[in-house]
Amino acid sequence: MINNWRSISGHLDNLRVVLVATRNPLNIGAAARAMSNFGVRRLRVVNPYEAAFREARSAVGAAGLLARAEQYGSVAEAVADCRLVVGTTAAGRRELQHRLRRLEEGARAIKRQLKAGPVALLFGSERVGLSNRELSHCHWVMRIPTREEHGSMNLGQAVAVCLYELVRGRKTAPAKTARGKKEKTPAKSGEIERLTQQLFQVLDTSGYVKPRAAAATEENLRRMLRRMQLDASDTVLWLGILRQIAWKLRANKKDDK
Amino acid sequence: MINNWRSISGHLDNLRVVLVATRNPLNIGAAARAMSNFGVRRLRVVNPYEAAFREARSAVGAAGLLARAEQYGSVAEAVADCRLVVGTTAAGRRELQHRLRRLEEGARAIKRQLKAGPVALLFGSERVGLSNRELSHCHWVMRIPTREEHGSMNLGQAVAVCLYELVRGRKTAPAKTARGKKEKTPAKSGEIERLTQQLFQVLDTSGYVKPRAAAATEENLRRMLRRMQLDASDTVLWLGILRQIAWKLRANKKDDK
Repeated sequence: MINNWRSISGHLDNLRVVLVATRNPLNIGAAARAMSNFGVRRLRVVNPYEAAFREARSAVGAAGLLARAEQYGSVAEAVADCRLVVGTTAAGRRELQHRLRRLEEGARAIKRQLKAGPVALLFGSERVGLSNRELSHCHWVMRIPTREEHGSMNLGQAVAVCLYELVRGRKTAPAKTARGKKEKTPAKSGEIERLTQQLFQVLDTSGYVKPRAAAATEENLRRMLRRMQLDASDTVLWLGILRQIAWKLRANKKDDK
Repeated sequence: MINNWRSISGHLDNLRVVLVATRNPLNIGAAARAMSNFGVRRLRVVNPYEAAFREARSAVGAAGLLARAEQYGSVAEAVADCRLVVGTTAAGRRELQHRLRRLEEGARAIKRQLKAGPVALLFGSERVGLSNRELSHCHWVMRIPTREEHGSMNLGQAVAVCLYELVRGRKTAPAKTARGKKEKTPAKSGEIERLTQQLFQVLDTSGYVKPRAAAATEENLRRMLRRMQLDASDTVLWLGILRQIAWKLRANKKDDK
């Protein structure tokens, strides 16, 4: 199954998500969960708080992935096998020495590189992000287009958004509709016209149609029903509804007599 | 500053993020933080766990936004002023009755609608997502392209990814409509709900509703009326039609006596 996904989503198995000096176990767990959601399997951690990493291993939804996570003592070691190393940063860091790419543009470059070999995507610690020293291992830096006034994202959310962008453009099967549910099939004109007549009849019986304006009312109803762009099954449903109402109106009338 | 962002990112101030029955305060906080990151300000919560909501109010990074969050007792009330209501779901929910759009496609539709008026984006509870009853208030449903084998995302991450997609393409030119042709003004959810109730009442009087299936019928009607994507003036027309029928059904009944 996962192989299938791999080929579809462009060599994602070559991607290494590298969490540097992460403090909060929930964030390691959240990063792992997002990786699992989007089909990325290789997690590397550099100098996490020991306790945080131990605790994260029991996090929901991505236990296998966390169990296989690799731990390194430095960024250099963690990215040694990668041909492209990309850092991530919040908005508003103006002192960067690196080329800064927007996520959309950066993801395109990463996807190209993933076909050729391993790529590392680095996320810094919750409080300060990647240090200049850590960034020095990066070829360039990518930033998520957050607001300048509040650019700093939660780590788990930043990972999720970056990975989403990487799988985003892939050409998987179109979104599935609910099982057995076919694409909307527009109703045929003849069916809509039957509906128009049934509605007109119900409204006539109900006293909604003024005799002098009957033709205009009928036209209005016809236009309205066509504006609704009903599909075939909804048309059947509406016909059933109107028939029931018509029946009830007639039944009441008979009772009168 | 925020005004600047607003004009750039296409009327995001019309977006309401609606969290339904959220249990974990960290998730409410994370959703609020992502909203702040991406310039979305209106948070609504429906029946959160009380303690969770109280605790979340002290979450990092988005205190003002959380303080202004609005609390509702039902989805109907939370979306009453919205002209488009979109649910979110994980992969692999196959029993959906709704049209399912991939996030990319759905976000395009939402962005168009944001120019015209309020749009609600619903996120269900952590454990079960949105119930069928909650979904019945939605016009359609959107899903993030996660792996089928592990589709269910963390709530805060799902919010972040959806909002990212909404701000992502923001340099695109608005879709042009034919010159001189007015945009359809979609009806507000509150109006559609009034229509739903009126239709249900007429059908109940007509004997269309089987007592045992009353709740299911009501949900079916609610979904059907939302599928129709009625515009505001057609909704008024339909309400008038149904009121007239209801009146006639009642009048007939009185005649019986």
